[in-house]
Amino acid sequence: MQPMNTTSKMQLQCPMPKFDFEIITLGHGSGGVLTSKLLDEMILSQFSNDLLDKKHDGAIIPIEKGRLAFSTDSFVVSPLFFPGGNIGDLAINGTVNDLAMCGAMPKYLSLSFIIEEGLKVTDFWQVIQSLKKAAEVAGIQIVTGDTKVVEKGKGDQLFINTSGIGLVHEKANIDAQRIEIGDKIIVSNSIAHHGMAIMSVREGLQFESEIKSDSCAVNYIITELLDQFGDKIKLLRDPTRGGVATVLNEIAEDINKGVFIEESKIIIDENVAGACELMGLDPLFVANEGVFIAIISPEIETEALAIIQKHEKAQKAFCIGSIVTENPKKVVIQSEMGGKRMISKLIGEQLPRIC
Amino acid sequence: MQPMNTTSKMQLQCPMPKFDFEIITLGHGSGGVLTSKLLDEMILSQFSNDLLDKKHDGAIIPIEKGRLAFSTDSFVVSPLFFPGGNIGDLAINGTVNDLAMCGAMPKYLSLSFIIEEGLKVTDFWQVIQSLKKAAEVAGIQIVTGDTKVVEKGKGDQLFINTSGIGLVHEKANIDAQRIEIGDKIIVSNSIAHHGMAIMSVREGLQFESEIKSDSCAVNYIITELLDQFGDKIKLLRDPTRGGVATVLNEIAEDINKGVFIEESKIIIDENVAGACELMGLDPLFVANEGVFIAIISPEIETEALAIIQKHEKAQKAFCIGSIVTENPKKVVIQSEMGGKRMISKLIGEQLPRIC
Repeated sequence: MQPMNTTSKMQLQCPMPKFDFEIITLGHGSGGVLTSKLLDEMILSQFSNDLLDKKHDGAIIPIEKGRLAFSTDSFVVSPLFFPGGNIGDLAINGTVNDLAMCGAMPKYLSLSFIIEEGLKVTDFWQVIQSLKKAAEVAGIQIVTGDTKVVEKGKGDQLFINTSGIGLVHEKANIDAQRIEIGDKIIVSNSIAHHGMAIMSVREGLQFESEIKSDSCAVNYIITELLDQFGDKIKLLRDPTRGGVATVLNEIAEDINKGVFIEESKIIIDENVAGACELMGLDPLFVANEGVFIAIISPEIETEALAIIQKHEKAQKAFCIGSIVTENPKKVVIQSEMGGKRMISKLIGEQLPRIC
Repeated sequence: MQPMNTTSKMQLQCPMPKFDFEIITLGHGSGGVLTSKLLDEMILSQFSNDLLDKKHDGAIIPIEKGRLAFSTDSFVVSPLFFPGGNIGDLAINGTVNDLAMCGAMPKYLSLSFIIEEGLKVTDFWQVIQSLKKAAEVAGIQIVTGDTKVVEKGKGDQLFINTSGIGLVHEKANIDAQRIEIGDKIIVSNSIAHHGMAIMSVREGLQFESEIKSDSCAVNYIITELLDQFGDKIKLLRDPTRGGVATVLNEIAEDINKGVFIEESKIIIDENVAGACELMGLDPLFVANEGVFIAIISPEIETEALAIIQKHEKAQKAFCIGSIVTENPKKVVIQSEMGGKRMISKLIGEQLPRIC
């Protein structure tokens, strides 16, 4: 699948220097002169910091006593470029958000490329620029990395793994087992943008207003919530693959309590809802990349929503429902007409390679 | 490329349970029920520990004040199975050794799979068993992970990323800038096994005695060296892609001094040397996966070699040469006949997808 005419593809953030190669070859992954050249000219120069510049097999990080969060994600999104982002910012935001969901402030990331021979240097450069910008926005450093190249037809342009280390907020006590009946379920923004942005590109659909991925880092919002409310934040999860419905099902199973949500409270932008309807997809199962779900004590609902909504990428935060005694391990949704039904986890593939 | 009739392929370490799927499908990567099934039955059950079992987006690790080492590597080796190992133990040993090269004791690993649709469950199970065994041998825990599936023809069976966290030995002061004229260059075992094992499978070559990969974890040897000699260990590097010659060139460039080695001192097993000759490869450029290079103070040479040689996987440790003033930034080798020549970094591809 080829990148479409997307805004992200248009905005080169930094003029590309002149390289004496136009595509990545197998030699760039063999550990010799070409590998050094690729690393020095395209990668290390862009992410320079004291830890990375040592160019050792790993980074050495001085650390205080405390709790670390450690997370990993491989990104295989197709196409590489989509409205609202590309695999680069997705790879940063994905791991940053996973760390934030642990109640941590993300600090250090590793960056590992698996490149298919023939990847255009212009595309790679653009992804690197997005990685760089997203890292700056999230306030994290790339401190170690790896680059491999596979033969044409043995990969798909570019896969990226990011792994990350964060420092757990001293007030954080994120633990599903602390969730009680009556706790509120907050969703930090309107849903289903990322999945539908990818699908609209794949299917070549045009809507009145372009559907953009919501890919963004939510770590600063989480830090503010933990600063303010500490252990009243019981659980944080990001509804990526499988969407809100799958995460809520996982939570219900885990805590052996019921999850009750109201359809009328779910916020979905009009163009996203239209696209879902057109493609026969339930937005509750569609992936998000800049949304988090927080399970919180009921008494902080109003104040927590106000804090979240201050952030540009979370202005539509809403309370979707609460934890209940009825139907343990199940998610029940009350429709706008008043009827109730169970919603289960995503079965099989809805949107492969969404992230 | 298909796995050959190798010993590693024959030794199933643990009988495989009955799964109700024979191949991995796209649905196994979509975040829903099938993903949970794959994770629970094949992966989480095998690596169970307190940190991983939380099944959160990341692991939370209590930590004392000190220095962390953090490293990442993606493994794309082809074929997946080769004499002496497979992609599973390679993925553990590679990152464990990278951490050890930082002077660290490896503790926690992340594990991320990119699976090509159609991967046989029997193959995947065997890789998982190797990952498990190698993790046990190296004394590390898998604490977080990720699994993605890509369409047939968009990957090559299985790629694995491991990232790792280690605690830097309190006596370690690994720093190339501390290297002085006269420091000795130790190589921890006979060289070129891994690269030649892979090549012999790829080329379908049969030798009198099978060439096996040297893939193993060297972390315990490093810990013992640091316990004993502290900052007299100046630099540690593992000569993987690009081999011993490429690493020595990188060191020479970095320290702006000369590296002088003697051909007569290099230990290469007879069958490996024969295979190299047959294929026209210089063993100094061939990848190793269980060998390290240590630059050490000259006064500890004999004692350090004795400690290294006690370990089963390093019985042939040898001193290959020393750091000199002549030819700064260059590696000079004295041939067995007495002549001297420069050896440079590997240019382009010698052995793609060796790790």
